[in-house]
Amino acid sequence: MSTPNGRTTKQLRVRGETLRAFCERALRAVDVPSEDAAIVADVLVAADLRGIDSHGVARLRRYTDGVRRGVMSAHPNVRVLAETPATAVLDADAGLGQPVSYRAMQRAIEKAHAVGVGVVAVRNSNHFGIAGYYAMLALEHDCIGMATSNAGRLVIPTFGREPMLGTNPIAVAAPAGSERPYVLDMATSTVAMGKIEIYDRLGLALPPGWAADRDGLPLHDAHQARTQLSRRAGGGLLPLGGASETTGGHKGYGLSLLVDILCGVLAGAAYSDRIMSEGVAGGVPTHPNLGHVFAALRVDAFRPLDEFKAAMDDLQRRIKESPKAAGHERIYIHGEKECEAATERSLLGIPLNPHVVDDLRSLAQELDVPFDLE
Amino acid sequence: MSTPNGRTTKQLRVRGETLRAFCERALRAVDVPSEDAAIVADVLVAADLRGIDSHGVARLRRYTDGVRRGVMSAHPNVRVLAETPATAVLDADAGLGQPVSYRAMQRAIEKAHAVGVGVVAVRNSNHFGIAGYYAMLALEHDCIGMATSNAGRLVIPTFGREPMLGTNPIAVAAPAGSERPYVLDMATSTVAMGKIEIYDRLGLALPPGWAADRDGLPLHDAHQARTQLSRRAGGGLLPLGGASETTGGHKGYGLSLLVDILCGVLAGAAYSDRIMSEGVAGGVPTHPNLGHVFAALRVDAFRPLDEFKAAMDDLQRRIKESPKAAGHERIYIHGEKECEAATERSLLGIPLNPHVVDDLRSLAQELDVPFDLE
Repeated sequence: MSTPNGRTTKQLRVRGETLRAFCERALRAVDVPSEDAAIVADVLVAADLRGIDSHGVARLRRYTDGVRRGVMSAHPNVRVLAETPATAVLDADAGLGQPVSYRAMQRAIEKAHAVGVGVVAVRNSNHFGIAGYYAMLALEHDCIGMATSNAGRLVIPTFGREPMLGTNPIAVAAPAGSERPYVLDMATSTVAMGKIEIYDRLGLALPPGWAADRDGLPLHDAHQARTQLSRRAGGGLLPLGGASETTGGHKGYGLSLLVDILCGVLAGAAYSDRIMSEGVAGGVPTHPNLGHVFAALRVDAFRPLDEFKAAMDDLQRRIKESPKAAGHERIYIHGEKECEAATERSLLGIPLNPHVVDDLRSLAQELDVPFDLE
Repeated sequence: MSTPNGRTTKQLRVRGETLRAFCERALRAVDVPSEDAAIVADVLVAADLRGIDSHGVARLRRYTDGVRRGVMSAHPNVRVLAETPATAVLDADAGLGQPVSYRAMQRAIEKAHAVGVGVVAVRNSNHFGIAGYYAMLALEHDCIGMATSNAGRLVIPTFGREPMLGTNPIAVAAPAGSERPYVLDMATSTVAMGKIEIYDRLGLALPPGWAADRDGLPLHDAHQARTQLSRRAGGGLLPLGGASETTGGHKGYGLSLLVDILCGVLAGAAYSDRIMSEGVAGGVPTHPNLGHVFAALRVDAFRPLDEFKAAMDDLQRRIKESPKAAGHERIYIHGEKECEAATERSLLGIPLNPHVVDDLRSLAQELDVPFDLE
């Protein structure tokens, strides 16, 4: 439903296939090859299906703009820089993050089939969407999958006051039998930037442990946090565990730093404040040079698959069936909420915020592709 | 210095070599082979040197008692159950955790030399001491090392009220050039049990996010927390991030569960509340059947070693030299404090609490070995 001036007024629900086809059209319109466009579209829509709206089609423009501005290459020359039976390093040649990540994870899985484990690092890449997507690719191969990436700096180290690390996600997926797979997909900060934006829109105060101001002191004003961070005016998000060692903030900081060591230092990409913002400076596109690391462990290199799956089911049930805290009726396993969202949204369609629909309509006009989401 | 009745009255400082030799004697007295005794002693003293007193020689009795009671085997028949070029699974045959862990990590490093990565899982094991010890074994081989273990249940899952997971540590060590190596060694709970004991002794209230009572509600009484946990009377430690999803507690819970999936389910050991306490029930020793996973990544499989080390130095300096929060003068890299403690304690000796000295003196009498720590 839209007003006479063409603006959408209520939430739409759109089928996953429809959204995927729209994203593919938009990406092909900026000269992304069909196969790559299909991968980017699938990663975006997977995020929406799983309820991770901050990383879904609402971010399509980031990639089409990225290509149009020359930050992300539509036709990268991806090269294998080094390879052993269990490892490889790819240079993404400043291409879109998703296609090279998809292929790197497949390569890690092939290596796991051959020698038990595969670890594939990628340098010179761009934002790859949700980390969990790649970890989950391992599931149908009966492997445990891991995916991680560094990212532009938003997070301050313990006792610091300038953002020196990204929200650097870690994702791990492990198959189960009759239970759902375990899928952890977490930023190593207490919250990702999207949560600050939501609290700002709702006019809510930030809970403790989320953000610090330019002096490194606790910040509860969501609008100030959002503004300072977007202007790079000091302060930043806090690592998981908050600002102090007492609440374990040094552990979240340590995990974020670990991701930067693997994805920046080991992969040979940029790291910390060497990672530049996507953009154009003096007419020249600035490329962030992100790094990713993907890993797969073949379950039956360790024990028979049926034993593993039976134990995964048993472990999940023991935890879920254990007594609940006062006021709670359910204990979740990681990935369970997202799996339920995907089931519901596959059936009923993906709910799209009117602002997102308007933006996608504008994008369709700019790129001269058909708009069929309403 | 000791009183006429033989009790120590002030803190002693003992040289690392002296302590190591004492631990070896005690372990050999309970029939642990020399080579294994040397490994256990080295892991214990390494913890003391690094300032992790909770895992040092204060815990020697845990292992000598473990052997004497039949919980830990002094002469295990360690077997390789499965092996690929990059992976192996060992059955520790209920032996002491340290010797099998040392050998498993060495095997992971050999595999990393051969094929780029090595992952070695161990089942049917016992407590292995500090996880960081094994991760750090990779450093001299210019590998990134990782070590993790599950443990007896102390931690409650998000929205639960019974401990269903261990404090399940994760350790990662990465070499640097002229800077110190990065050494993360963290429990996946906000704090380990030792911190609760210290707060109880000092009569301090527990900070938020540390523990929950038997209803799963925040618990600030350190004595109550300590008593409930040691009696398994409900409640427990909280995962990193605390009790709620708002503060990211589900992430710490997810990391703890990940460790149990790798060390319990994948390695084929016990997990969750299937892990029994070390002890003797009805005359029969109960063995916890812990699992561990060790991994090594050979740096130069990914990029030239000198490049990696230069980037590690640069990353560390950028973070350490970034502006400090109000009231703070220093930003630390993980492992830095422990490295400084080791330098100081190597020079001045390891400070031992009088209670620990008394206990070691009693142990020497029980085992009929010379006591030379004062």
